[in-house]
Amino acid sequence: MQKLTIVKVGGKVVEERDSLQDLLNRFSQLEGLKVLVHGGGRSATAMAERLGLETKMVDGRRITDQGMLEVVTMVYGGLVNKNIVAQLQASRINAIGLTGADLNYMQAVKRPVKDIDYGFVGDVVSVHVDELKLLVEKGVVPVLAPLTHDKNGQLLNTNADTIAAEAAIGFSKYFEVELVYCFEKPGVLENADDDRSVIQSLNHTGFKALQTSGAIHAGMIPKLDNSFNAISKGVSQVRITNIPGLQKGGTTLLPD
Amino acid sequence: MQKLTIVKVGGKVVEERDSLQDLLNRFSQLEGLKVLVHGGGRSATAMAERLGLETKMVDGRRITDQGMLEVVTMVYGGLVNKNIVAQLQASRINAIGLTGADLNYMQAVKRPVKDIDYGFVGDVVSVHVDELKLLVEKGVVPVLAPLTHDKNGQLLNTNADTIAAEAAIGFSKYFEVELVYCFEKPGVLENADDDRSVIQSLNHTGFKALQTSGAIHAGMIPKLDNSFNAISKGVSQVRITNIPGLQKGGTTLLPD
Repeated sequence: MQKLTIVKVGGKVVEERDSLQDLLNRFSQLEGLKVLVHGGGRSATAMAERLGLETKMVDGRRITDQGMLEVVTMVYGGLVNKNIVAQLQASRINAIGLTGADLNYMQAVKRPVKDIDYGFVGDVVSVHVDELKLLVEKGVVPVLAPLTHDKNGQLLNTNADTIAAEAAIGFSKYFEVELVYCFEKPGVLENADDDRSVIQSLNHTGFKALQTSGAIHAGMIPKLDNSFNAISKGVSQVRITNIPGLQKGGTTLLPD
Repeated sequence: MQKLTIVKVGGKVVEERDSLQDLLNRFSQLEGLKVLVHGGGRSATAMAERLGLETKMVDGRRITDQGMLEVVTMVYGGLVNKNIVAQLQASRINAIGLTGADLNYMQAVKRPVKDIDYGFVGDVVSVHVDELKLLVEKGVVPVLAPLTHDKNGQLLNTNADTIAAEAAIGFSKYFEVELVYCFEKPGVLENADDDRSVIQSLNHTGFKALQTSGAIHAGMIPKLDNSFNAISKGVSQVRITNIPGLQKGGTTLLPD
């Protein structure tokens, strides 16, 4: 099996011109087949504000009403995605920017309302990468925006970490997949205040122990849940790191 | 050679929910391989207004400064494009939404400033449809937004009629291409005020005569220039029609 590296970038990394340029330079230098998944929450919040729309968050998750869905469709699917694609093309990377609706590669259902109505937020139900695989094998680099669709004409906002994990699982049918979560911190930290306390490797049992002890920061938990889910479903390796660690470094997640 | 139909829709057709739905229904029923090209000027103008940006037009062409480029990238590349893709997927059309930066399928240069500075507007310099052809042959339907790039990281606003004509020329290397311009009027009219005065067929000599006599409406001239350019460069047939005429009808443009 050929190796495929899926890099997810989010947070400030992708939304500040300098760090984005640094990231894309390093991403361009990664050898072999690759996929980029991006977020864009800060830009969406800024655009919503310019449009006079209020951003509502519950536990760090965006409430996506009709107005906010328009904003994220524009910002994630258009502004952020197409600028990354254009910049990668300038670095001789043959990129293609996609949402889950494109090629129907990722289908979701609107999250059922329980305690909270998240609005037009999608929970992934199926991934079809057959056509994407053809492009990837020709050296094309998909750039995936955090949007899915329900196959009934409705676009849905979907967490970018989840998109990355689900795409990684989908591609693992055809490739030996390494999933890299790239964010501000150098890895999973034993002490959230000390960037030198990177945990070199972590298995699911270790993660659960750190979660119980409260050592792992709340925002990291869904990322790790996504990661271990991916590993349990065929993804070869998951790493959590920052831009300088893109090639190697950070925290490597392992099966038990 | 297999037949490929490229349909360009613009104006109100694509921006009002009812007419868009009607169009997509009819487009879905077109047999064989196909491509959809869309505009979105009214939505861009409306979004610019919401953001407090002034829309400047010269001879019906948009001046695209940095702020307006962000708007068209969001609206054309995100909002309009991805909603069309999601709706086509609901009609079991395996659509993929693209700008010229995606797969580097259409490269342009920023229009040189002569009398007027159009800003970030692109004049097409090259079309590469090799990867798109692979997808089209598998039944995938590209949905093309009116954006190109300069291969140096800059996205550019490009007239959708031109995108359609250039894509048609590019694909004519591999397919027998029919290009259909679909807009509000039933065809090229001999009398702009009389929708029943559709000219059934028109060659370049006839077009020039009507242009000289002033019978052809100013806004129609670039569309016809694009059309005859496409015919002279290998496109088999061009039709100008409205939604009910999508399958057949309207004005057929012919070589001399």
